[in-house]
Amino acid sequence: MKYFLHLAYDGTRYAGWQMQPNARTVQAELDRALSLVLRQPVHVQGSGRTDAGVHASQQVAHFEADVPENLPLDRLLYRLRRALPPDIAPLRLHPVPDEAHARFSAEARSYEYFVLTEPDPFRREFAFFIDRPLDVVAMNEAAAHLVGSFDFTTFSKVKGAETHYICVCYEAGWHPAPGGLVFRIRANRFVRGMVRLVVGTLLDVGRGNLSPEAFGAALRAGDRSLAGSAAPAHGLYLSRVEYEAGLVPAAA
Amino acid sequence: MKYFLHLAYDGTRYAGWQMQPNARTVQAELDRALSLVLRQPVHVQGSGRTDAGVHASQQVAHFEADVPENLPLDRLLYRLRRALPPDIAPLRLHPVPDEAHARFSAEARSYEYFVLTEPDPFRREFAFFIDRPLDVVAMNEAAAHLVGSFDFTTFSKVKGAETHYICVCYEAGWHPAPGGLVFRIRANRFVRGMVRLVVGTLLDVGRGNLSPEAFGAALRAGDRSLAGSAAPAHGLYLSRVEYEAGLVPAAA
Repeated sequence: MKYFLHLAYDGTRYAGWQMQPNARTVQAELDRALSLVLRQPVHVQGSGRTDAGVHASQQVAHFEADVPENLPLDRLLYRLRRALPPDIAPLRLHPVPDEAHARFSAEARSYEYFVLTEPDPFRREFAFFIDRPLDVVAMNEAAAHLVGSFDFTTFSKVKGAETHYICVCYEAGWHPAPGGLVFRIRANRFVRGMVRLVVGTLLDVGRGNLSPEAFGAALRAGDRSLAGSAAPAHGLYLSRVEYEAGLVPAAA
Repeated sequence: MKYFLHLAYDGTRYAGWQMQPNARTVQAELDRALSLVLRQPVHVQGSGRTDAGVHASQQVAHFEADVPENLPLDRLLYRLRRALPPDIAPLRLHPVPDEAHARFSAEARSYEYFVLTEPDPFRREFAFFIDRPLDVVAMNEAAAHLVGSFDFTTFSKVKGAETHYICVCYEAGWHPAPGGLVFRIRANRFVRGMVRLVVGTLLDVGRGNLSPEAFGAALRAGDRSLAGSAAPAHGLYLSRVEYEAGLVPAAA
């Protein structure tokens, strides 16, 4: 049987989602814990990678396994929670049709980037603290340029192995959040490093170092040298993965 | 001049509030940072101690210092923030009359204890996760016994050096909170270890191991052997210190 696992994780102590040699990754921890609990080799496939230090408030992964008939899924979820370190929290588990795929069946993804404008000692690993005023109106004027279908080469990492850089961005904007701001962006796909580069460049706009028009021109130029520096990983969350209707049952 | 400093801190990496040899304490960090910024020896006096690992969302401390006339208090607060580690956040600073005292002028203190009933990887150092159902109605029936003036010997640490154990408790109860519950308790004073012992014993009630009536009887017996084990430090916050009217100006 094939299953979707929904989970959240604190990415602080991980070298990202993706399995890699000699590094602690979320994918490797999940494989280890699921294989242990189900007493068979299990391999999870995520909806997408998150970079080192990036968090997820909702990530989705699929796996195939023989779950014993006498092991209800809520019991399996409980055991999995016990087998995982406390910075990875499995949230939901449900069967999916064989053709469902955590990555390829996803129709949209959302990220959130949290900025604190007031210091909060309890969130210093979970949001980026900026100790000076930001021009949020200008940041939102710039962000509006992102909505649509664009080649996002400007906001991509050189290392990325994408076949193309075109993303359809449905939503991008800054909103008030406790102690600061949150940037929400929703798109059909993201290229590597995109959100942190977009946020870093929008913060240049907020600090008055770049105009909203120059931000739009940078996007359209498709030139990496026009992007600002990437915002730090610890403010970023993969926050939602959306699938075709019916694949994910409504939450209880 | 005498000043009140309001601050929040993540207690995870501290041996508590109180200065002690060979240990990292919040008080020692504040003394160091204030002395550095003001270029004179400064010593802070807190409203009360917090134990190792306990947090504060609002602690208050006073200190006496000569603040240069050309250094506005918001600028001093900014410099202090820069001089402190990120797990201590100075929030407000205002002058007080010479006779004001962070500890002796306080009329009431409040603590909050956060329990998570759903796993949350971002709050695992900031709330106590309990992976089984709790009888909140019974816990609140038991907590109601705390309201009034009582000798709290039952819920005190042996090590405490109090001259007496009588506390007037104005409020004690469990409330819904994101992902779980919060216990709020407000009293004129607290004896050492009191909130963690109260919470630990209330959790015994919530798990069905102690009746609300037995909880009340334990309080009235004044017998430490009747208390449960202390709840872990990382769920506990000093959340409010109240002073006589006029001492703390209304927030901007």
